Amino acid sequence: MKELIKKLRNFADERDWEQFHSPKNLSMALVVEAGEILECFQWLTEEQSRSLDSETLKKVKEEIGDVQIYLARLADQLGFSPLEAAEEKLKQNKKKYPVEKAKGKANKYTELD
Amino acid sequence: MKELIKKLRNFADERDWEQFHSPKNLSMALVVEAGEILECFQWLTEEQSRSLDSETLKKVKEEIGDVQIYLARLADQLGFSPLEAAEEKLKQNKKKYPVEKAKGKANKYTELD
Amino acid sequence: MKELIKKLRNFADERDWEQFHSPKNLSMALVVEAGEILECFQWLTEEQSRSLDSETLKKVKEEIGDVQIYLARLADQLGFSPLEAAEEKLKQNKKKYPVEKAKGKANKYTELD
Amino acid sequence: MKELIKKLRNFADERDWEQFHSPKNLSMALVVEAGEILECFQWLTEEQSRSLDSETLKKVKEEIGDVQIYLARLADQLGFSPLEAAEEKLKQNKKKYPVEKAKGKANKYTELD
Repeated sequence: MKELIKKLRNFADERDWEQFHSPKNLSMALVVEAGEILECFQWLTEEQSRSLDSETLKKVKEEIGDVQIYLARLADQLGFSPLEAAEEKLKQNKKKYPVEKAKGKANKYTELD
Repeated sequence: MKELIKKLRNFADERDWEQFHSPKNLSMALVVEAGEILECFQWLTEEQSRSLDSETLKKVKEEIGDVQIYLARLADQLGFSPLEAAEEKLKQNKKKYPVEKAKGKANKYTELD
Repeated sequence: MKELIKKLRNFADERDWEQFHSPKNLSMALVVEAGEILECFQWLTEEQSRSLDSETLKKVKEEIGDVQIYLARLADQLGFSPLEAAEEKLKQNKKKYPVEKAKGKANKYTELD
Repeated sequence: MKELIKKLRNFADERDWEQFHSPKNLSMALVVEAGEILECFQWLTEEQSRSLDSETLKKVKEEIGDVQIYLARLADQLGFSPLEAAEEKLKQNKKKYPVEKAKGKANKYTELD
């Protein structure tokens, strides 16, 4: 991830894109790309989404790449790594969703017993 | 990233959540969380988004954590790492946006002379 | 719709919110609210989504109200009605998806024979 | 709106698309199209977004048409009109954001004194 973040900084610097890469704009770009992942799945059944044909898989992989790029760039502009943020969040989630209560349930933590 | 992916597999397994984690559903969860990042910035100016107060920053970091979690989980369900996808995409972007053409411009690659 | 658009103008004027309601910001607010609709459905099966309990239905209706509000407001800022835009788009869709080719298929128009 | 909703029912019926139009899937399509509106604005300044060139305006209008179509279709599948939902929500908003407290402020209602 550190490697990727450095490359992205360099990529933006070379193109003089720092001016466009405000956190506000990056959050928009992130959602645009996330929407393009969603587009790949919108008319598939859940089952179909578990066994994509190679063309769709390639497309989804590219869009996931885009989301990762903007996510890393956004986090970097705010001074942290998205991995660090994920690790912290995962710790919180373990508390919010204790195994004994959450097992087999898709409820939000506020709706567990 | 490998470490995170393993933890996420384990987290889902323990809670018997594999049944909910179809790529279709994960793509939805990803966009929901990306929308929550967007929410933090929607009424801010670009300038304000570059210097967040500590409370908003904390909130954004949590949402970025969520997006990273779902992105890693989705990619893992499809058999690859989001970092790998990002590296591949970055290579493509370098070709699509050569420095001499893209410098200082926010145009899409299809709109660069 | 005309009635709603007038009320929304008045609502924003009274609160001096015109300054925040740039099309850029409104497009963000629109997506944030659309994401909140998505949240209601993310872990449901398609079948479950066709028969919501009354609490979820109430929540979805509120979020649909929010999306309609921002959509109307955004279109109004750009000088047209969203209904007019929908009617025009529907005409295009009829050409893109002729009954004989599109019947029973979820493919994008570019992928119909 | 009633006219549009009828046309959309007819459009889907003729193409045998009812099977794909679960509320879950429609909520995804809605967000995908909302993301395409966002894409038009992501690298523009707020000021630029207030005076679009004719090509971008045409594009945005089409995307707004798409969002209105899916929003109307989703609401119809759930048994109500999006206009009705918007009117109800607007009433709530008037209570949440009283003029004297909300004037000139972009805060969420939970953050107004």
